[in-house]
Amino acid sequence: MWNHTKITDKLSIKIPIIQAGMAGGITTPELVAAVSNAGGLGMIGAGYMTPEKLESDIQKIKELTSKPFGVNLFVPEHPAVIQEEIERANQLLEPIRQMLGIEKKNDVPQINTSVFDEQIQIVLKYEVPVCSFTFGIPQREIIHQLKNNGIVTIGTATTVKEAILNEEAGMDMIVVQGSDAGGHRGSFAGSFDDSMIGTMALIPQVADHVSIPIIAAGGIMDGRGVLASLVLGAQAVQMGTAFLTCIESGANELHKEAILNGTEEQAVITSAFSGKPARGLKNEFIIKMKEHEDALPAYPIQNMLTQDIRSEAAKQKNKEWMSLWCGQNPRLSKNLHAAELIETIINQIEEIISNFPLIKG
Amino acid sequence: MWNHTKITDKLSIKIPIIQAGMAGGITTPELVAAVSNAGGLGMIGAGYMTPEKLESDIQKIKELTSKPFGVNLFVPEHPAVIQEEIERANQLLEPIRQMLGIEKKNDVPQINTSVFDEQIQIVLKYEVPVCSFTFGIPQREIIHQLKNNGIVTIGTATTVKEAILNEEAGMDMIVVQGSDAGGHRGSFAGSFDDSMIGTMALIPQVADHVSIPIIAAGGIMDGRGVLASLVLGAQAVQMGTAFLTCIESGANELHKEAILNGTEEQAVITSAFSGKPARGLKNEFIIKMKEHEDALPAYPIQNMLTQDIRSEAAKQKNKEWMSLWCGQNPRLSKNLHAAELIETIINQIEEIISNFPLIKG
Repeated sequence: MWNHTKITDKLSIKIPIIQAGMAGGITTPELVAAVSNAGGLGMIGAGYMTPEKLESDIQKIKELTSKPFGVNLFVPEHPAVIQEEIERANQLLEPIRQMLGIEKKNDVPQINTSVFDEQIQIVLKYEVPVCSFTFGIPQREIIHQLKNNGIVTIGTATTVKEAILNEEAGMDMIVVQGSDAGGHRGSFAGSFDDSMIGTMALIPQVADHVSIPIIAAGGIMDGRGVLASLVLGAQAVQMGTAFLTCIESGANELHKEAILNGTEEQAVITSAFSGKPARGLKNEFIIKMKEHEDALPAYPIQNMLTQDIRSEAAKQKNKEWMSLWCGQNPRLSKNLHAAELIETIINQIEEIISNFPLIKG
Repeated sequence: MWNHTKITDKLSIKIPIIQAGMAGGITTPELVAAVSNAGGLGMIGAGYMTPEKLESDIQKIKELTSKPFGVNLFVPEHPAVIQEEIERANQLLEPIRQMLGIEKKNDVPQINTSVFDEQIQIVLKYEVPVCSFTFGIPQREIIHQLKNNGIVTIGTATTVKEAILNEEAGMDMIVVQGSDAGGHRGSFAGSFDDSMIGTMALIPQVADHVSIPIIAAGGIMDGRGVLASLVLGAQAVQMGTAFLTCIESGANELHKEAILNGTEEQAVITSAFSGKPARGLKNEFIIKMKEHEDALPAYPIQNMLTQDIRSEAAKQKNKEWMSLWCGQNPRLSKNLHAAELIETIINQIEEIISNFPLIKG
């Protein structure tokens, strides 16, 4: 069967489809549970979550499904806090804050590095079956602790080099993120510009250089993309944008609508929201900040600085100042229940297999 | 059979593989004929060819094969010749010329627009079976004239919009070039930045919006890429980099070696060589010109200005000042005869089909 792979075996799931752990309230317990109940792997996007919220989400998901699910965590980064950079960024952001009626905010952002360790403890406490990582590789002790507790570990790579680093660190499997992907780039061991490798080109090259199973990500939205990924050498896929527009997703309705009506040319790369390159639908914020991108504070500082703007814009239903993360094929997006989306994909794959001349040999 | 598609029918070829019409002496008559004799479609990269050279190549190919082959032409562009821009570019290029011992050259480049019409006349005269176009859509009269003479016309698109424009213009089929591709971007109806869509994301979106058959291009190097492209909705693939390193290819040996030893992170986008974005392996020229790219003359003016540097560097076997066009998966490149490459791909596909769980149902 096409849906029986090394990854479905290892994760004890029926369909080699993982719902990306998108951060920022998108991965509701309902979405995660729906994906897992449909035979895929639902994933909590715990990147920006407080430990309390993560704990309560895990509890809710356990009530909604007995199937495996995962948690995605962001490996913490510790950029230098440069007051001048922050002031310059705030100067650029101030007119936008004024326009939205936000009170002036000039606090120096505080990076709380203990959150990650607390998140890990919660994953261990609740024996969450799968833990994936973005923005780097955690310390080996953490990887070993998780594995010793029977938790499957998944790293993220955007180049062959990053994939090899993940394998060497002991990760069980790896998400290989092509440049087609929406949201933040997972790059951590090279220049961002040089890590923009298309999914089509990247998957087979990584497959030739690592022995741990590969999860293809970036530009995969339907049965064609899933099947093509398996042909290219992946053992599963991870889909973000496709699940973001699902009914159970907690994404803002404006965000969903923008994707459902979007085109591939609108999904551009910007560092302006967070200080780290990410793909989202072009809007006023991206256009206005474009020329200043290189001088903005690093992630996660810039992310903290724009937080008030993004959340106020969402409240005011003004999508021009929100981050509208989206991969390169919004034209394939649908507004379905997650289970319907997975069923549609399965049917599409079965149809390709039964109709495609290649299968008839 | 997997290799029986709408495109193999229409082109009367046995394998849905087209060798890209790479310009600049790469597509020797031997390469073109070898690809066609092996069951694919060889293609003359006539972009920068004089009518005389095109005519003699066609004659040689007809001696080497009775199978169909094609010619790729560049639709001419007529940018304003801005003397200031040219002088600024020459100032940047002068130290490189001096270093290579090239005599100062300050002629205003002349764009010869009659070449394209002469090339079309030769295609008609020799009844070349296939004519493909890059950098735009030729006038409708040309498309109709070719089609009325039984010549199959192929356009190039990098977005859904460009694909639709090609279909509306009457093209028989269309090369859909993802951002994974090497060499020049074929974009012509939008901003270059917004036309960098990964092959994985682009093919299915185009397939949903046009009814003419699609030839996938960008990041396809082996059986995995060919089969994945067919699954995504293409009826054939076009491969450039994979054929560039073949034994029959006329590419400079330094260029071949650079690809054979290259990595995916080295294949970057630059406008510095030609005034138009293209993907090639990073070298001194690309690095030095990076900060000036936006101020350079448009294609083809900048291309003419760097001509002496590129050819002198090749003579001196100095790859740092040559254009080393390359797609995003040099790690998959091989130095084989074209027929061996095609046979390897066929065997790989047959192996995937016979071993892949999906096929065993």
